[in-house]
Amino acid sequence: MTYCVGMLLERGLVFMSDTRSNGGIDNVTTFNKNYSWKIGDEGVVTLLCSGNLATTQAVVSTLNESISGLSNQQYSLDKCKTMFQVAKVVSKILLDVILESCDLPVPEKNTFNASLILGGQIKGESPRLFLIYPEGNFIEASDTTPFFQVGETKYGRPILLRGYDPGMSFEKAIKLLAVSFDSTMKTNLSVSPPFDFQLYERDSIALGPSGRILEDDPYLQIISEGWGEALKSALDKLPDFRI
Amino acid sequence: MTYCVGMLLERGLVFMSDTRSNGGIDNVTTFNKNYSWKIGDEGVVTLLCSGNLATTQAVVSTLNESISGLSNQQYSLDKCKTMFQVAKVVSKILLDVILESCDLPVPEKNTFNASLILGGQIKGESPRLFLIYPEGNFIEASDTTPFFQVGETKYGRPILLRGYDPGMSFEKAIKLLAVSFDSTMKTNLSVSPPFDFQLYERDSIALGPSGRILEDDPYLQIISEGWGEALKSALDKLPDFRI
Repeated sequence: MTYCVGMLLERGLVFMSDTRSNGGIDNVTTFNKNYSWKIGDEGVVTLLCSGNLATTQAVVSTLNESISGLSNQQYSLDKCKTMFQVAKVVSKILLDVILESCDLPVPEKNTFNASLILGGQIKGESPRLFLIYPEGNFIEASDTTPFFQVGETKYGRPILLRGYDPGMSFEKAIKLLAVSFDSTMKTNLSVSPPFDFQLYERDSIALGPSGRILEDDPYLQIISEGWGEALKSALDKLPDFRI
Repeated sequence: MTYCVGMLLERGLVFMSDTRSNGGIDNVTTFNKNYSWKIGDEGVVTLLCSGNLATTQAVVSTLNESISGLSNQQYSLDKCKTMFQVAKVVSKILLDVILESCDLPVPEKNTFNASLILGGQIKGESPRLFLIYPEGNFIEASDTTPFFQVGETKYGRPILLRGYDPGMSFEKAIKLLAVSFDSTMKTNLSVSPPFDFQLYERDSIALGPSGRILEDDPYLQIISEGWGEALKSALDKLPDFRI
């Protein structure tokens, strides 16, 4: 499993992903699921990957080759004038990779499936965020649905729904994500640190700060313990039910 | 979908269930999923139901008939000397109902599947709590796994893991469950109030207090709003990430 979140803020975009890949409980490995590219001087995109690792790595390699001018013309990002066009190229690559692995219409439970979160900005547009399905189509974030999750999404969703604020700072957004990821890893062994983050500052058309939060990172420990204590104290302050 | 929780406390047992049943988004109805019986003067059991409604209603009706002496001998609860024996009877009924609907080995995704939480006490034993699978087998709660959830379990799990305390009062346990149910209904339309609760006081061998918390119950509103505010304030108090 996996847990990735992409978030649209007034200030820009925030991405976070875990790094656990498992082919069974006895085959657990660490892989990057968080990739960013600069498209000439015109744009910046970040991709978060969930699903079959061979599929997502093939998508990333194809994008790498596309950026370097080594892949076939239909996968080129250079001519994309909008993030919608970028999303169309990436989703086309995803669908092609899945169909190469399994030359059948894509069923919901296809082993080779993957879902992607794609965000970024092309000059002349605002930052945009997409959720790309293994069927090769996608939806776009909006004011009413300003973040997307992929992978093991449920444990960490309630706090995102309640803590998200479009005007929040990057520093606070990473804190919110750290809480959401901590809640998820506490309940599902298939989601684990290190957690990778990537920021994108609106209108910068440049890769923003990025980093890796390790399992023994003091910040993650402060968040995990502090959140546990804060929840207990919040619960204590609510009135007990009267039987 | 459904959301039910059964919880083992030092003081006894606490059960809560939602009441939403849906056969599609345009076919939403309210049903009780929370049943209790007295077994002579010797025991008390409570059952929480998740899964196919025809299946769980058939299980409940069979148990009703068993208690009234109307069903066949193999389903009799009267001779059960332990909760383990009760769990064996209930799981046998469940498996028989599923197999009657579909005379095939029970696959994981069988339409007629259901899962049950069973708890109670028979004189001479401590209160015990079980999770019964559609395959007709079951597991029992313990100090290390003192509560069971069925249905839409993930959204409401992190707060249960962090808020549960075996020594908590019934009043506080219902508060904790109200928060867990509120987090779940906020994120999944298939879980909805009214929420039914049932308590069992250790060694009483009598049905404890029960009740129904309606959607517009002031307590539920206080919990929902109070919890949202408490989470935001807890998040504010944690240190922001330093980029």
